[in-house]
Amino acid sequence: MSATAGKVIKCRAAVAWEPEKPLSIENIEVAPPGKGEVRLKILFNSLCRTDVYWWDVKGQNPLFPRILGHEASGIVESVGEGVTHLKPGDHALPIFTGECGECKYCKSEESNLCEVLRINSDRGVMLSDGKTRFSKNGQPIYHFLGTSTFSEYTVLHAGCVAKINPAAPLDKVCVVSCGFCTGFGATVNVAKPKPNDTVAVFGLGAVGLAACEGARVSGASRIIGVDLLPSRFEQAKQFGVTEFVNPKEHNKPVQEVIAEMTDGGVDRAIECTGNIQASISALECTHDGWGVAVLVSVPKKDAEFKTHPMKFMEGRTLKGTFYGHYKPRTDIPSVVEKYLNKELELDKFITHTVPFSEINKAFDLMLRGEGIRCLICMEE
Amino acid sequence: MSATAGKVIKCRAAVAWEPEKPLSIENIEVAPPGKGEVRLKILFNSLCRTDVYWWDVKGQNPLFPRILGHEASGIVESVGEGVTHLKPGDHALPIFTGECGECKYCKSEESNLCEVLRINSDRGVMLSDGKTRFSKNGQPIYHFLGTSTFSEYTVLHAGCVAKINPAAPLDKVCVVSCGFCTGFGATVNVAKPKPNDTVAVFGLGAVGLAACEGARVSGASRIIGVDLLPSRFEQAKQFGVTEFVNPKEHNKPVQEVIAEMTDGGVDRAIECTGNIQASISALECTHDGWGVAVLVSVPKKDAEFKTHPMKFMEGRTLKGTFYGHYKPRTDIPSVVEKYLNKELELDKFITHTVPFSEINKAFDLMLRGEGIRCLICMEE
Repeated sequence: MSATAGKVIKCRAAVAWEPEKPLSIENIEVAPPGKGEVRLKILFNSLCRTDVYWWDVKGQNPLFPRILGHEASGIVESVGEGVTHLKPGDHALPIFTGECGECKYCKSEESNLCEVLRINSDRGVMLSDGKTRFSKNGQPIYHFLGTSTFSEYTVLHAGCVAKINPAAPLDKVCVVSCGFCTGFGATVNVAKPKPNDTVAVFGLGAVGLAACEGARVSGASRIIGVDLLPSRFEQAKQFGVTEFVNPKEHNKPVQEVIAEMTDGGVDRAIECTGNIQASISALECTHDGWGVAVLVSVPKKDAEFKTHPMKFMEGRTLKGTFYGHYKPRTDIPSVVEKYLNKELELDKFITHTVPFSEINKAFDLMLRGEGIRCLICMEE
Repeated sequence: MSATAGKVIKCRAAVAWEPEKPLSIENIEVAPPGKGEVRLKILFNSLCRTDVYWWDVKGQNPLFPRILGHEASGIVESVGEGVTHLKPGDHALPIFTGECGECKYCKSEESNLCEVLRINSDRGVMLSDGKTRFSKNGQPIYHFLGTSTFSEYTVLHAGCVAKINPAAPLDKVCVVSCGFCTGFGATVNVAKPKPNDTVAVFGLGAVGLAACEGARVSGASRIIGVDLLPSRFEQAKQFGVTEFVNPKEHNKPVQEVIAEMTDGGVDRAIECTGNIQASISALECTHDGWGVAVLVSVPKKDAEFKTHPMKFMEGRTLKGTFYGHYKPRTDIPSVVEKYLNKELELDKFITHTVPFSEINKAFDLMLRGEGIRCLICMEE
């Protein structure tokens, strides 16, 4: 039992008081975890585009003040009543979606979309009592994605906390919490390329590069990176990308360019941009007979996927996936083990590091499109 | 060696001289098989809609005179040079698509779309020399789908002939040659329902009923048949259909009706109508998290598949398939074995029987939508 268990903790958090305004480091109060909840001491964050999306007006959610942050790592400080799979001192990753273990999705081997803890960007309170665990001078501060990791301490539903091997360096495995698994799992769990397959990856941001890492680990013979920014190619080589296609440099659809490069199409394609035209290209650039395309990134609300049904009749498959098809509590520990066993690489995702007090610099880097992940160290 | 080997055979064939005119039973000449070809004595045909489609003007193919027919069974009369997997007397099924065994598709475990022998409805001649093997008084008569089984003898590429167990009754297993495998394989090889899964089948013609048979054999807990003709439901019960939905009887999209019936959607859906709206409904009526929809029937050339990409992001999969994903020579013998082992039922597909001389009655039944399959007995 830690000395702080059951008590309100005062600590620092980066509060978003309103959209698009720099986050403000504040001293706040964090209530103890309720029944079925966990209070986590956050040691590292890495900034993901989703935090930025819900911080600026594009997210369209007026839930402020709010503590953002969801790609992170930490140590369990205390647990609420009924929590049996975690104890103080456990090393853990907060996960923005969850695994209740009881619903029909959790009981299905085929899905990780937990009915209870599935991602919900609109909710700003705890599920159990509809209240926040954060406040400043009595004013409630809203939660974000059930994680709110831009705080030295945060409270989560226990189903959103994955216990991991304490041997894993928390400054490296924090990327497993969101971006890495989203891309890597889309490849290894859903597209499932075989050794020597050809793979195209649309979008070479962190998620796309994680998809490339999945293809590299799977033994793909060629990994074709597709992006509008040629500056990304050099970096992508570290992730196994062997060829680069910039759709802007061709006067024909990119799916035709890729089909010509690969004698009819790639074996697998992973779409990590959220652009609907790229989604269609991802399907259509796969080889007939066996091509599989996987949609990873969330498209706009009014987007429409359109293609000729013969693209399917000719033997292609289109799938979508969420968080790389990983069940947070069941599967994430094994991803960390693979890192420890050197079966996959994580260190190369971290290109920048800032102390927590300079968290807004991480936002600036993201907005400028610089680097892959910026690590935010909570202890300075 | 048969007495007729190497010689021209004179026999009866039902010739389509022009579109939409009744077939005419004629005495024709059938040349011996060339290199890599097989001459088959046809014993039974069952009429498939595809024969009717290419006979009337909707097929848009002006290749006449032509001998139609592709769903059939027979016995090898003689083989051409280089044919090693078949010999005279072998019981066999002609297959409208083929398996050369050498191309990248045949070598892939994931595809049955042979590059050389893939279905080609426009070609009316043999691949080896661009000539026909049929003639009447010196006038060439064109082939159809590489099979042309509305003849007592026909010549096929050896890659389009599946050798089967001679214990199998040829008047029953002829439906394996096309319609049965197309639907049954779409379910068992592609949709792959697990025991107790719910399955929706769109279209309750022969192919759709074969898809239902696949669901029944897989142990589906509920099989929901979707058709615009209520008269088909009673018949469909024999194929395991437990519930019937007529989209015309509801004032909301059929996918919503099915989702309400099944607490969120079916586990698997098979589309056997070729209607593009039914294809979209098939995807959208599946359960999020794990739903798989399979497109079986060929849509119109100008059809466009449209859906919101979130339907995929929520964990649904859309696949298309051709001939039930069976490789003709490799896989079809095992389907016949399953019938012999009573692991699947075929007899119930044959609802009518006519002698070859009355083949036009089979066309009339098909055009009136009566029955499932009409057997055409070549020996009268």
